[in-house]
Amino acid sequence: MGPLLALSLRLPRRGSRRRLQALHEQLRAAILDGRLHAGLRLPSTRALASACGVSRGTAVATYDRLLGEGYLVARLGAGTFVAAGLARPAPRPAARSPDPRLAQAWRRTAPPGAPPARPRYDFRIGVPDGASFPFDLWRKLLGRATRAAARSGPADAAAAGRAALRDGIASHVSFTRAVAARAEDVVVTTGAQQAFDLLARILVTPGRTVVALEDPGYPPLRAAFRAAGARLVPVPVDAEGLVVDRVPRGAAVVCVTPSHQFPLGTAMSIERRTALLALAQARGAVLIEDDYDAEFRFGGRPLDALQTLDRSGSVFYVGTFSKSLSPLLRTGFVVAPPWARDALIAAKRTADGENPALAQEALALLIAEGHLARHVRRMRRVYERRRALLLAGLARDFGGALEPVAAVAGLHLAAWLPAGTDADRLAARARDQGVGVLALSPFYAGRARPGLLFGYGATDEATIAAGLARLRTLWRR
Amino acid sequence: MGPLLALSLRLPRRGSRRRLQALHEQLRAAILDGRLHAGLRLPSTRALASACGVSRGTAVATYDRLLGEGYLVARLGAGTFVAAGLARPAPRPAARSPDPRLAQAWRRTAPPGAPPARPRYDFRIGVPDGASFPFDLWRKLLGRATRAAARSGPADAAAAGRAALRDGIASHVSFTRAVAARAEDVVVTTGAQQAFDLLARILVTPGRTVVALEDPGYPPLRAAFRAAGARLVPVPVDAEGLVVDRVPRGAAVVCVTPSHQFPLGTAMSIERRTALLALAQARGAVLIEDDYDAEFRFGGRPLDALQTLDRSGSVFYVGTFSKSLSPLLRTGFVVAPPWARDALIAAKRTADGENPALAQEALALLIAEGHLARHVRRMRRVYERRRALLLAGLARDFGGALEPVAAVAGLHLAAWLPAGTDADRLAARARDQGVGVLALSPFYAGRARPGLLFGYGATDEATIAAGLARLRTLWRR
Repeated sequence: MGPLLALSLRLPRRGSRRRLQALHEQLRAAILDGRLHAGLRLPSTRALASACGVSRGTAVATYDRLLGEGYLVARLGAGTFVAAGLARPAPRPAARSPDPRLAQAWRRTAPPGAPPARPRYDFRIGVPDGASFPFDLWRKLLGRATRAAARSGPADAAAAGRAALRDGIASHVSFTRAVAARAEDVVVTTGAQQAFDLLARILVTPGRTVVALEDPGYPPLRAAFRAAGARLVPVPVDAEGLVVDRVPRGAAVVCVTPSHQFPLGTAMSIERRTALLALAQARGAVLIEDDYDAEFRFGGRPLDALQTLDRSGSVFYVGTFSKSLSPLLRTGFVVAPPWARDALIAAKRTADGENPALAQEALALLIAEGHLARHVRRMRRVYERRRALLLAGLARDFGGALEPVAAVAGLHLAAWLPAGTDADRLAARARDQGVGVLALSPFYAGRARPGLLFGYGATDEATIAAGLARLRTLWRR
Repeated sequence: MGPLLALSLRLPRRGSRRRLQALHEQLRAAILDGRLHAGLRLPSTRALASACGVSRGTAVATYDRLLGEGYLVARLGAGTFVAAGLARPAPRPAARSPDPRLAQAWRRTAPPGAPPARPRYDFRIGVPDGASFPFDLWRKLLGRATRAAARSGPADAAAAGRAALRDGIASHVSFTRAVAARAEDVVVTTGAQQAFDLLARILVTPGRTVVALEDPGYPPLRAAFRAAGARLVPVPVDAEGLVVDRVPRGAAVVCVTPSHQFPLGTAMSIERRTALLALAQARGAVLIEDDYDAEFRFGGRPLDALQTLDRSGSVFYVGTFSKSLSPLLRTGFVVAPPWARDALIAAKRTADGENPALAQEALALLIAEGHLARHVRRMRRVYERRRALLLAGLARDFGGALEPVAAVAGLHLAAWLPAGTDADRLAARARDQGVGVLALSPFYAGRARPGLLFGYGATDEATIAAGLARLRTLWRR
């Protein structure tokens, strides 16, 4: 840290006798006003001396004085640290009332708060098995990508994504989902969330554009379109998926999860898919197809993606590697129709320039060398077993009270509760007992049908069995 | 790729004699309609067989038939590929007229186009020396971060950034810039660009909020505020930095580069800094301090950051590791006042969730173990030499015609040309001769004073000397 510290210190010229005093005063002032905060480790005396152009003796004397005065504390073998409790308190807003300097829409933001403790029986949804991620392979691929970058020199900025990754994604979705995609149709994003956010930017005129969303649906998708100033209209979902007849006439954008409705898990029927595409074509509307965990399909015939069936360039196909590989990668993508590509790339450039290059190159290697396909194949078997166990447990132990929603894909399962059940209360009591299940209600914009969600991405078979047993005990009471 | 392909194929049940025919027809259809695009490598026959549940013989026969028909081509040792020129052309917009499905603001986006070829004498600005990035170290740190993640299991989402990195950034800016920052004040972003974009979101009410920007200034910053719907007002810059008296009365946000004005390089005087802070406090305005390459300061006393001087919580301090380390990292940050923190974190969550975790952990290690400080110290010497060489060359070879703008920091230098010189034409001619210098004009919103920009981040000493020699020849003609 040495010389850097010097930047913020102003000492009398070399040889002056006041250097020790000045150094001492300025460090003390920096501690008192919080610039050097409690717990901060200071540079070694040698580094301080070289940084400030003082003798080692002056540096030692300065620290000694500050130690003696209690501004610093020394921890044996660890270094010298700024003592706690000295700085003036940081300025804080007087009240919890929002600051008028924030734009109106952002004034009512709740503080993030600490993430809840992990429940013992973790039925979280939307996450794959963390331990199964091929960490060793990933480390090696990152190493290869880093070495290649060192050899090839700095690459040009590429807002749409690195060529190798766009190519890999195009191949991947061509094969796995029969999506018509060439490398130039693909824009790489920071997770699916940024895909939604960029699409909201380029498709929404604030205060005007009507966006139809599934109800129940995915709250972060809603948040992105709300932030862009869209007028949101929830549209109900039934056993065939989105009720297309209920899409409002003026909707310019319709967001859907046809393969595996989020959060219910139902697949949209082919009739509804056809009707939705016809609606888009007739009205000049745009469809956003979120295919978030379509890789994990268990038997049953796959239905074509909307994008595959589309002949009018109406569909944006959004995918993510957060489920098929790991949320650690924070990599998603859009397959965009040609008319929107330039705008989408420009939005990405404005939003954050581009995704970090090395991780993109490593992911491209992972796809090109067949590791993704192998990993998905392996994990599909794992999830299929967990899912079967969960279904069997629900059928056996809950006397028909928890009725699984028919679904053939994904990393979680929804189950209806009898009408009138207070699902929120049940879920809260379950969490108190260490069973981390969610109620369906937070996913509804309108009135919720009571139900629970069981994720099996983060939970092994033994935990599923034990968690269900505990839930059953609770349920019987 | 094997089993994944199966997802999009529908074959008669096992044992049926029509499996070969169905497989052949469906692959052919997928090639014809472009779902399997030209040049795509198909899975091996073994993988295809296992994926579709057909015999190896059926898979071989299918490929043979498609090869015979010309739908596939085999390349010895490389595999089997989709032939070129078969698919129907992809749908394209009939004209270059923008599609009405795009929001108005995004209809006039120019296509990105290929990046320009690297000039032989590369005076690009805004990039550090690419080859000096400690690739080996970075590879090792990524490896350590990956191994640690494998051991510790999946981490909770953290929109503001990983705790270790926020802590490292707080220490770094405390020491190097005397910025008052604790870990909880820091939000990690995808480069400085996302910092600007998130700030624009939370501070701008579309169509209403007036934002003052330096003129000349940084175009991507302008783009972010324009995309958020701000009313942009350019404010002139003189030898003391932003002319604070010219900030319009209604400006709610003022964006400045006090350490090293972009692109001129001048430092904002202490009087202007004080005046700007007083203005912000009096009017309830917000200041965005972009400290983009303050690490590279060559002699001269540093002036305090605006954030350091601020006592009213008016300043957002934006930094980046793109200059001090590498743009490969795509990592920037905001030090935010407490009243805006929740909104900023919520905006980050909406925009893309969070930065990828492993690179954050690796960067935290790099800072904590002193590598960043060492790297900056080493590179400061390198850049200082290049800069001295450049200044000497300009003074010696251009007979006073190129007058360097006084500056004590950064990775580039601006130089004025005599009034009336056509700097754009000169820069274009220089680029034709392999000398990659930029004219100042693209950075001005209003009328530009003629000048050139010389970056020395990407250019070694020999190249600087040779590039200047060539420019001199051109200049004398």
